[in-house]
Amino acid sequence: MANDTLLTLADIQAARARIAAYVKRTPVLTSDVLDAAADARLFFKCENLQHIGAFKARGAANAVFSLSDAEAKKGVATHSSGNHGSAVARAAALRGVPAYIVMPEGVAKPKAEQVERLGGRITYCEPTLAAREAATAKIVARTGAAMVHPYDNRKVMAGQGTAALELLEDTPPLDLVLCPIGGGGLISGAATAVKALSPATRFIGVEPAGADDAARSFEAHRLIPLTHADTMADGLRASLSPDTFAHIAARVDAIATVSEPGIAAAMRALWEGLKIVVEPSAAVPYAAIREGKVEVRGLKVGIVLTGGNVDLDKLPW
Amino acid sequence: MANDTLLTLADIQAARARIAAYVKRTPVLTSDVLDAAADARLFFKCENLQHIGAFKARGAANAVFSLSDAEAKKGVATHSSGNHGSAVARAAALRGVPAYIVMPEGVAKPKAEQVERLGGRITYCEPTLAAREAATAKIVARTGAAMVHPYDNRKVMAGQGTAALELLEDTPPLDLVLCPIGGGGLISGAATAVKALSPATRFIGVEPAGADDAARSFEAHRLIPLTHADTMADGLRASLSPDTFAHIAARVDAIATVSEPGIAAAMRALWEGLKIVVEPSAAVPYAAIREGKVEVRGLKVGIVLTGGNVDLDKLPW
Repeated sequence: MANDTLLTLADIQAARARIAAYVKRTPVLTSDVLDAAADARLFFKCENLQHIGAFKARGAANAVFSLSDAEAKKGVATHSSGNHGSAVARAAALRGVPAYIVMPEGVAKPKAEQVERLGGRITYCEPTLAAREAATAKIVARTGAAMVHPYDNRKVMAGQGTAALELLEDTPPLDLVLCPIGGGGLISGAATAVKALSPATRFIGVEPAGADDAARSFEAHRLIPLTHADTMADGLRASLSPDTFAHIAARVDAIATVSEPGIAAAMRALWEGLKIVVEPSAAVPYAAIREGKVEVRGLKVGIVLTGGNVDLDKLPW
Repeated sequence: MANDTLLTLADIQAARARIAAYVKRTPVLTSDVLDAAADARLFFKCENLQHIGAFKARGAANAVFSLSDAEAKKGVATHSSGNHGSAVARAAALRGVPAYIVMPEGVAKPKAEQVERLGGRITYCEPTLAAREAATAKIVARTGAAMVHPYDNRKVMAGQGTAALELLEDTPPLDLVLCPIGGGGLISGAATAVKALSPATRFIGVEPAGADDAARSFEAHRLIPLTHADTMADGLRASLSPDTFAHIAARVDAIATVSEPGIAAAMRALWEGLKIVVEPSAAVPYAAIREGKVEVRGLKVGIVLTGGNVDLDKLPW
């Protein structure tokens, strides 16, 4: 896919204006203790403090508020392991239209409860991508709802990228930005914003070794779908789409992978160092620093902490 | 004690200028979920996100940087169950002078580790106020260090009050401010700031029923020292001093008390609702809302979340 068909900075700036009233400008937090441990200056963009506890509020709001009134009134539909479902339910409620959310059986309880609290109508399905897509297609066929894919959607990708716009505004010039990779929506938008506004900043994506489709695809220069995910980072079990892979190939400098114990240790270190609750998926970039998979010594590093929806009865330590 | 001998707004503004370079301007966080549960608008001043994970960084910095060079070079000493000890160690390190910290045996491990990491020299003693004071007096006699009492110190009280200055600046006009009461340093400074800048705002202190010296003293119009503390809120086991009681009597509108299960439930609700880590002491004001001890319906309420130093292996749920 040619570069000139990818997302542009203008898309992300338009998203920002569209969703400004519906999302929080989350703080960027720092910790002397974590800086000393890494011998770097780390700037954490705290999207766990976003509405619904995750950056997903951004992309969903951009997608839902991009619909025409005629489209919107039939409602919106999506499938999600959790945070995106909440985000779509919330955006639909703000717009006053129905939200149909397909979730895999066994999804973390707080995530399902949040969707319900926001008025989303949940349909449970088998925990496979095929089952999710089939269930969602059925709902779309019946209701005429607009599909808001969790990541394979340009409005969603652009919305997620607004987090990176804010990160750059609230930090000194960054040498490096790290963000996790699930389906690739966040990294596509964020890397677009960073490379447009600060071309000298390196951008590295990080994913669990147990869901390393981005790393393998990046190395092979072609999309290698994820067939099996084995990671506690439940937000990162999705497989890249051709479109998100095209953005990663064009705009990301490298991909690192991290171990499961590394994710748990990083998660705990963030809780203790920053005094915030982050979910395993959000801890993945910091795990790369702790495991030495990314060299940060002496650098100013921006890190997107993607979400904080975790079951407090099931902590990995 | 006459009102004109109490702390003034000018003391707190002076503290703010003195410590500006050494403390964080912490964010004020909100949550739609917590607002809906309380039918109020709640503004949480997140001092758990402060340096050393607690508002105590403010008061200690003000006290240590108020010393003359001649005084400071002999070092500073204090006794503390944790956060104040870290705060004094940090302020002393910033000023380049020694810090002697007396801590009770059995103090939460992360708190002692933090003091050590900051270069504080710890002396352990029996977990009684008398033992703490004796051990500290001995160190002061030997070294000539300046005593920085955790709360019975006007510079400490004024420094803690700077958190309330920022809270008022970052919120719409508040109907009510809530903060926890331990030894009374924070509430003395905070109520001074709030009553000077926003006289119509009610100010309510909250403490555990198992350490209710402030409630009993407030009702009796005389200081009734705490002889026995029974609460998980380890930061609130201290007994008011005559000076902090004088500030409370003059500037606080009411005192509420909360139960131990209420503190644990409030703590968990804050973790889940705000995605931040707060320690039991910090959850005490929110517990008063949840337990119906303070009426907040329809109000704009500022709440100081005092700290986030908690042992993740010993959570109360």
